[in-house]
Amino acid sequence: MPAENTRVLALTGGVGGAKLCLGLDRLLPPGTLQILVNTGDDFEHLGLHISPDLDTLLYTLAGRANPAMGWGLEGETWNAMGALEQLGGSTWFRLGDKDIATHLFRTARLAAGDDLAAVTADLARRMAISSVVHPMSCQAVRTTVHSDEGDLPFQHYFVRRRCEPRVHGFSFEGIEDAAPNPAVMELLAKNHFSQVVVCPSNPFVSIDPILKLRGLWKALRDCDAPVVMVSPIVAGLAIKGPAAKMMAELRVPVTALGVARHYAEHYPGLVDYFLIDESDATLADDINRLGLKARVAPTIMNTLEQKIELARLCLALELR
Amino acid sequence: MPAENTRVLALTGGVGGAKLCLGLDRLLPPGTLQILVNTGDDFEHLGLHISPDLDTLLYTLAGRANPAMGWGLEGETWNAMGALEQLGGSTWFRLGDKDIATHLFRTARLAAGDDLAAVTADLARRMAISSVVHPMSCQAVRTTVHSDEGDLPFQHYFVRRRCEPRVHGFSFEGIEDAAPNPAVMELLAKNHFSQVVVCPSNPFVSIDPILKLRGLWKALRDCDAPVVMVSPIVAGLAIKGPAAKMMAELRVPVTALGVARHYAEHYPGLVDYFLIDESDATLADDINRLGLKARVAPTIMNTLEQKIELARLCLALELR
Repeated sequence: MPAENTRVLALTGGVGGAKLCLGLDRLLPPGTLQILVNTGDDFEHLGLHISPDLDTLLYTLAGRANPAMGWGLEGETWNAMGALEQLGGSTWFRLGDKDIATHLFRTARLAAGDDLAAVTADLARRMAISSVVHPMSCQAVRTTVHSDEGDLPFQHYFVRRRCEPRVHGFSFEGIEDAAPNPAVMELLAKNHFSQVVVCPSNPFVSIDPILKLRGLWKALRDCDAPVVMVSPIVAGLAIKGPAAKMMAELRVPVTALGVARHYAEHYPGLVDYFLIDESDATLADDINRLGLKARVAPTIMNTLEQKIELARLCLALELR
Repeated sequence: MPAENTRVLALTGGVGGAKLCLGLDRLLPPGTLQILVNTGDDFEHLGLHISPDLDTLLYTLAGRANPAMGWGLEGETWNAMGALEQLGGSTWFRLGDKDIATHLFRTARLAAGDDLAAVTADLARRMAISSVVHPMSCQAVRTTVHSDEGDLPFQHYFVRRRCEPRVHGFSFEGIEDAAPNPAVMELLAKNHFSQVVVCPSNPFVSIDPILKLRGLWKALRDCDAPVVMVSPIVAGLAIKGPAAKMMAELRVPVTALGVARHYAEHYPGLVDYFLIDESDATLADDINRLGLKARVAPTIMNTLEQKIELARLCLALELR
C-alpha cells in the first residue's frame, strides 16, 4: 500500500498514459490522485467541442473504454455516423452515438459559459470517477503538425491522415496565452504533491504541450516531489501511437535514450527518475549520464495487474 | 393530372403542413413543387443548429418520417440521449441518433460558411427529394412566445413546456433584418408560379413568421397565382399542435372563421380561396363575407390518398 500521505499528480495524453493512470487510480485511495491531461488534441468538429485525451482518460477510469478499438466506449453504436455518411457528411472522425453525448454535454456547457475544468469535473463526477481529472488549461491550445503535406491540425494528421505524412515539427497555437490549470498550479506552489508521474505518453504531442504551458515545467521541477517518468518507447517501438515514427522522422534515435535526451535538453532538471523497460536495460548508463536516474522495470501494461504494479513502482521511487 | 404548366409554391410549418406537401409532392411531376418552410422554430441546442420544420418536411418527403411519433425518423435509436441522460445533460429535446446526423451535417456546413438554403438543398438532394425545399430565410428569425411564464423561446414553450403556459402573443426576433428567401422572391417577381398553397399549419407560429418577412406577403398577393389556404382548424380543433389552444388563449374564436379573420385582417387581399372542412360548411358564408372565397372539402389527411386528393383540390381552384 502507498504511504499515508501519498498525493500524486500524473501528467498524461492518450491511450498509453491512460493505462498507467488506471493503475494509479486503482492503487491509490480515492481522491489521492490528480491527473493533468493534454488538451492540445482538442478540436471543434461538426459543431462539437471534442477533447479526445480527456475522454480517453475518463472512459478508461470509468471502466467504460472499448478495449478492442483502443478508443471510444464499450458497447458503442454507430447510427449517427451511418446516417451522416448517407448525407455525405464528414465521417473521418468516427463518433459513436454514446460518445456524441459526451461531446454534446461538453459543448453545451462551454456554450453556457462554464470552463473546461468545471465541465470535466462534472463529467468525472457523473462517471463516478474518484480521481481528480484536470484539463491542462481552460483556454484553447491547438497542436499543429508541420509535415510534408503542410501544416495539419492534430486530428487531421492523427485520424484523417492516419499519421502518414512525414513530420518535421510541431507548434501549439495559443500556448503563450493559455493559463496552465490554476488549481494544479496552486497545489504545486503549496507543495501539495508527494509524487509526480509523467505517464508513457507521446513526448511531442502529449507531454510537450503540457510542459510548455507558461511556468508549468518549472513549477514541477521546483516542487519537492520527485518527478518520475515512464518511457513511452520500449525496445525501439512506441507501445501505442506515432511516437516512434515521429522520432524517426525528426532524426532522433528511436530509443528510450532518445526520449530521455529530449526531456533533459528541453526541461533540464525536471525529471528525477526515468523508468525504462527491462528490454532497454543497456541504455541505463547513458540515461544516468544525462542526469536522469534510470530505473529498469517491466513497463508493458497489458493487464490491470501490470498497470497497478507499474503504478506501485513509480510511487516507490523517492528522492534520496 | 395537373395542367401542363403547373408550378406550385407551398408555404408550410410542421407536421400538418408536411402532410399536404407530401400530397402535392406525390401528385406533381418532379421539380414542379417548391416549398417555403418556416424557420422561426429553429434553435441552437447542445451546439447544434436544429431546424425542426425543415427536418419534418424533409423526412416526410423522403418517406422516412416516423408515423407513430409524428416527428423524427422511422427506425430511430436513442443511444446518444440515453448516454446524455446518464451524464445529467439536457434531454428535454429528444434527439435520435440518426436525426443527430442531420443536425451535425447542417451545423458543420453552416460553420463552414454555407447558407441555410444551400445546406437544405443538399440535404434534400441526399434524401432523393425532387421537390425544391427552401428555408423562409437564410438569416435567423426566432419565434418567442409571450406567456404567463414570461417570454419563452419557441422550442422551450413547445417541447420543454409541452405548450402548457398560457399564451398572450408572439414575436419574431430578427424578422426586420432577415431577407426572405431570395430565390423564391425572384420567382414571385417573375410570376413563375401558377398556384400558391398555404398548408394547414399554425397561423401564429408557422405561417405568420413567413408572411411577416419583409415584402413577402405582398409579393404573394401581387403575383398572378391564386393563393389557396387550407384551414388548420377543423370543427373547432387543431388537427395537430397547439393552434386551437393558442386561439382560445388569445380570445379568438376557435373556428375556421377565426383563422380566416386572422388572415383577412393582417394580410388583406392575400388569400383567394379558403378551404374548410365539410364539418365546418356552415361557416362558408361568414368567410365569404371577409372577402375570402370559402370552399368546402374533406380536409382530413390520414392516408396518402387523402393527402393527394386534397392537393388535387387545392390545385383545381382557379381565379375566375
